[in-house]
Amino acid sequence: MKEKLQIVKIGGNVIDDSYSLNLFLKDFASIPGKKILVHGGGKLATELAGKLGVSQVLWQGRRITDEKTLKIAVMVYAGWINKQITASLNAFGGTAIGICGADLKILTAVKRQHPEIDFGFVGDIETKDVNVAGLQSLLQLGTPVFAPVTADASGQLLNTNADTIASVLASALASCYEVQLNYCFEKKGVLRDTDDEESWVRKLNLTEFRLMLQNAQVSKGMLPKLENSFLARQNGVSGVYIGHFSNIHHMIACHENAGTYIV
Amino acid sequence: MKEKLQIVKIGGNVIDDSYSLNLFLKDFASIPGKKILVHGGGKLATELAGKLGVSQVLWQGRRITDEKTLKIAVMVYAGWINKQITASLNAFGGTAIGICGADLKILTAVKRQHPEIDFGFVGDIETKDVNVAGLQSLLQLGTPVFAPVTADASGQLLNTNADTIASVLASALASCYEVQLNYCFEKKGVLRDTDDEESWVRKLNLTEFRLMLQNAQVSKGMLPKLENSFLARQNGVSGVYIGHFSNIHHMIACHENAGTYIV
Repeated sequence: MKEKLQIVKIGGNVIDDSYSLNLFLKDFASIPGKKILVHGGGKLATELAGKLGVSQVLWQGRRITDEKTLKIAVMVYAGWINKQITASLNAFGGTAIGICGADLKILTAVKRQHPEIDFGFVGDIETKDVNVAGLQSLLQLGTPVFAPVTADASGQLLNTNADTIASVLASALASCYEVQLNYCFEKKGVLRDTDDEESWVRKLNLTEFRLMLQNAQVSKGMLPKLENSFLARQNGVSGVYIGHFSNIHHMIACHENAGTYIV
Repeated sequence: MKEKLQIVKIGGNVIDDSYSLNLFLKDFASIPGKKILVHGGGKLATELAGKLGVSQVLWQGRRITDEKTLKIAVMVYAGWINKQITASLNAFGGTAIGICGADLKILTAVKRQHPEIDFGFVGDIETKDVNVAGLQSLLQLGTPVFAPVTADASGQLLNTNADTIASVLASALASCYEVQLNYCFEKKGVLRDTDDEESWVRKLNLTEFRLMLQNAQVSKGMLPKLENSFLARQNGVSGVYIGHFSNIHHMIACHENAGTYIV
């Protein structure tokens, strides 16, 4: 039987709210066994860009990353947020090590090529791009905490979507571990009606997801999470949850009301 | 016989000059065996502080670190500089992992207490504060690249002098490895006359260092390097060099003209 591995992505507004973040980190630190945390960036990068007069351009919810924006992203995500989270986890009794995809070549990305849009310094990754042996060794030492930054083979740093990192890591590690992937954010799960917090879906399969897409019931922010969730399931990840960060222990325990369970 | 370990500190103007930095990183990547790189911060943090309107105060060459300055230091040192160096080393064939003292609790610092000056978020470290077992495990995986940032036991991030980190790591690891400590910068070694590049000292012992101090021949920037060098020698570090970054391979090979050798 394979050893259990919990991969948790924390993002959205939780990163920006130090009280919520600390509650979550205390919970995360107490999860037993092997685990990985992937964090998003929150609004700090946008704030810093504003102060420095660097304008931000988004295309379908994804940031276009010019040189200045990349520098800000690396500073904020791999610097301030990553080290704060790591130091907090360790103060809560964890053994965390804050890294990004560039470290130990854990994730070797490819700069995004797109026929219409130049995304700039954005890195795309697939399951084959994960250094599984390196990650396994790292998991012997402690809990990797991933910032949403990667590098390509030439050493160019790249901005990479945190939801995708979590999904790709989960897929790549499914060959060695029984992997559960947990997307934690500030809502109870996938909402049928974005204005109704109680409209969250308990279970979602691919057919229902496609129906929701047809009915325009999937928000822009939720789309990459759901696509990544179904991809992870197809790649052998044993369970995927999308739910509220305060429910992380319920997700780990696979409670029925822990969030949206991706079937 | 103990295994050899090279600890290299790179700092000064080299960090700010991408051409020089890349030459150095290529050389460093080709050093065989176990090694650790510690990097300083260069002028980037000061530049960013200027753009953000955060004023910087120095006291005897050491930065006073208020909350905003800490954030800038962590972003620049542990984010941008650390990940750029790590990604470059890996592109040059290395297996580098970029960390700071907070990761795996490798260095648990104490916020500086001073009778006269409030240094703010500055961390002091001693040999006993090094998680030697964690560092040994990390050295099995690859080459740790340290940013000059630590955390205290409560998880508070702290700004910590890179020369001191290099010396303290060297001292702590001297029990397990035959450690050589190499301070690399843009001068040929310790200069007797700061205006004369060719006045560099080949060998320096404690008596001569004290004499240089009496004659005011030691620059402010050189003082912590030299104090840390003699401390490391007292703590069992087998060799300490201070020299030009382009001479790193001569330092490793203990050539006579590699830089200032601390006896």
